[in-house]
Amino acid sequence: MERRVVKVGLLGLGTVGSGVVKMLRQNSEELAQKCGYEIEIQRILVRDLDKKRGVEVDRALLTRDVRDILDDANIQVVIEVMGGEGETRDIVLESLLSGKHVITANKDLIALHGAHLHHAADSQNVELLYEAAVAGAIPIVRVLKQSFAGDNVREVMGIVNGTTNYILSKMTQENASYEDALREAQALGYAEADPHADVSGLDAARKMAILASISMRQAVPLADVKLQGIEGVTSEDVAEAKALGQVIKLIGRARREGDSIEVSVSPMRLPEEHPLAKVNDSFNAVYVYADALGEAMLYGRGAGEMPTASAVVGDLHAVLRGRKFAAGQLELIARWA
Amino acid sequence: MERRVVKVGLLGLGTVGSGVVKMLRQNSEELAQKCGYEIEIQRILVRDLDKKRGVEVDRALLTRDVRDILDDANIQVVIEVMGGEGETRDIVLESLLSGKHVITANKDLIALHGAHLHHAADSQNVELLYEAAVAGAIPIVRVLKQSFAGDNVREVMGIVNGTTNYILSKMTQENASYEDALREAQALGYAEADPHADVSGLDAARKMAILASISMRQAVPLADVKLQGIEGVTSEDVAEAKALGQVIKLIGRARREGDSIEVSVSPMRLPEEHPLAKVNDSFNAVYVYADALGEAMLYGRGAGEMPTASAVVGDLHAVLRGRKFAAGQLELIARWA
Ligand SMILES: NC(=O)c1ccc[n+]([C@@H]2O[C@H](COP(=O)([O-])OP(=O)(O)OC[C@H]3O[C@@H](n4cnc5c(N)ncnc54)[C@H](OP(=O)(O)O)[C@@H]3O)[C@@H](O)[C@H]2O)c1
Ligand SMILES: NC(=O)c1ccc[n+]([C@@H]2O[C@H](COP(=O)([O-])OP(=O)(O)OC[C@H]3O[C@@H](n4cnc5c(N)ncnc54)[C@H](OP(=O)(O)O)[C@@H]3O)[C@@H](O)[C@H]2O)c1
Repeated sequence: MERRVVKVGLLGLGTVGSGVVKMLRQNSEELAQKCGYEIEIQRILVRDLDKKRGVEVDRALLTRDVRDILDDANIQVVIEVMGGEGETRDIVLESLLSGKHVITANKDLIALHGAHLHHAADSQNVELLYEAAVAGAIPIVRVLKQSFAGDNVREVMGIVNGTTNYILSKMTQENASYEDALREAQALGYAEADPHADVSGLDAARKMAILASISMRQAVPLADVKLQGIEGVTSEDVAEAKALGQVIKLIGRARREGDSIEVSVSPMRLPEEHPLAKVNDSFNAVYVYADALGEAMLYGRGAGEMPTASAVVGDLHAVLRGRKFAAGQLELIARWA
Repeated sequence: MERRVVKVGLLGLGTVGSGVVKMLRQNSEELAQKCGYEIEIQRILVRDLDKKRGVEVDRALLTRDVRDILDDANIQVVIEVMGGEGETRDIVLESLLSGKHVITANKDLIALHGAHLHHAADSQNVELLYEAAVAGAIPIVRVLKQSFAGDNVREVMGIVNGTTNYILSKMTQENASYEDALREAQALGYAEADPHADVSGLDAARKMAILASISMRQAVPLADVKLQGIEGVTSEDVAEAKALGQVIKLIGRARREGDSIEVSVSPMRLPEEHPLAKVNDSFNAVYVYADALGEAMLYGRGAGEMPTASAVVGDLHAVLRGRKFAAGQLELIARWA
């Protein structure tokens, strides 16, 4: 049987984009077998055509003009790993409205514009998936949407920012000061040059807003998340907690309280034996409490090139195996018949 | 918009079956919204029509004759929670071959006849899902099949039998003898009157054969699983391990070794700080190691009425949202048009 080819447009070829290209190459045959389609990257949007990349790609694939992707009717799936939420929102919106399925790793985008983008996706019967946007390789989005779909989720709680977790781990394990731990995180590439979004708790708040919206089935605006970062955590705080057998972690929580939903991010003291107290470095972990399920926990890498790429490629598999893609294919065939 | 109704045939109304009926009732409106279909239980197979049930059901729904389900063309989905693997295999096979989607919680059935049943399901383009068969409420099957689909899984390892974990936990925490711990597990309903399948490691072996087959993409026969149970574990063994800061756990492992796949179940000593050492009572936990993903872990209830039912209902949601069900609906419409 001849395999049909699916053409993908990639927006961005930085950390995550390079990982996606590597994975699609390394596992191309297996993926094709599982999805039923050969996956071909048709075009890649970047800013700088001459930059050295983490992966070798044919220069002819690169473009600085997003229209090369938006206007290409052969591109059925767009993978957005460029970041940002102004121009990026417009690009993703146009992609969806022109009938392209979209996969994104962008939590800012989904936390701010998720409801609007979902609406656009539904209007065209295309997928909008974003597993990589929350807790990296941990399949928490799929599990909340699908596996626990028949259940009543009461609470989601966990560590969803790797940068702050790395800093707090260093402060705890090596008695480092906040400033030293932050510098080390930056040197290792765990923290950005401008670490504000991470250390202020904003990044975790975005992810918790997304998880709350999915699990409680009610859009939770980012502005409703109560937010406290780790900038105020001192080595004295860490030492004091330690003396009491406790560990300080930046914890995100989303809870049903009667009819309303409370979402918060703040540094919390956990007993040393608490499973979340043992989640160190850039790992993430998320607990889910639901009526039938009881308690469940998922743990894994919260970020990084390949773990994040693995979540993106998992979403690509889901798109190609899903009913919306199948419906689109039928329509295409009908149009040609 | 009028919602279409999907009729379900339920095989068995014991622990898991009752939980499924309860969940479908409690969350019927939400489920209907998410699936796009109203779910109606059309018929329930039992042995004893007069038995007292864990849930109230209209007596007219009960039947002792499986033909009432197999021959009913209106039943599009069969949920098998009766157990067994002789007669049950024939029933499931006939269901699939007559175009019904099947969801099962039955690890014996899948470990022994999974390949054959999958073949039948594929031949009719229907789903065969069994999330509840492995590690109860933990969505390990879906995650291995979908989220990690683009990755190369090297190893799956964990605690997948709640009964033996309960017994070992009691022996460790309360210095109980194997016999006393087993009796307690039986009194609490964690262990069957005949505990052989659990304590011999056979139940865990079935689950590991299933996980190995899914994650390594190669059918692993149950007979190939190296197997050692916990019957030989004495309180002296437990105490000796404890003195060394270790805990004994029944660990299942599936590993790629070059071109072959090694699957085993055996009691192992783990350092007390190992995350699996802290998985107690009837909880399960599964680690996955894959090239891109790195390391991930899923933790939750391995069995019990509602946790198991939650996995079954998650599969039902997946069937109704899936492309195979959609294709079947189109065919039905086409036949009537
Ligand atoms: N890194 C992680 O571990 C991780 C984890 C989870 C989620 N994410 C999310 O994934 C997304 C990408 O992250 P990343 O770390 O891969 O970022 P990155 O390394 O900075 O890469 C961004 C890429 O997008 C391109 N790009 C950005 N703005 C553009 C524009 N206006 N026009 C054209 N090209 C543009 C850049 O082009 P040039 O290369 O030419 O500059 C670059 O290739 C972000 O939304 C991030 O939040 C990242
Ligand atoms: N219990 C758990 O926590 C759990 C967890 C994961 C997976 N599972 C799996 O789920 C399945 C069901 O387990 P369960 O604990 O619910 O079992 P159960 O309580 O023994 O219930 C079995 C049900 O099936 C019916 N049944 C059995 N054989 C039948 C036959 N030949 N004809 C008609 N009806 C028959 C029984 O009818 P009567 O009621 O009339 O006797 C009963 O209602 C098993 O495969 C098990 O391995 C169970």
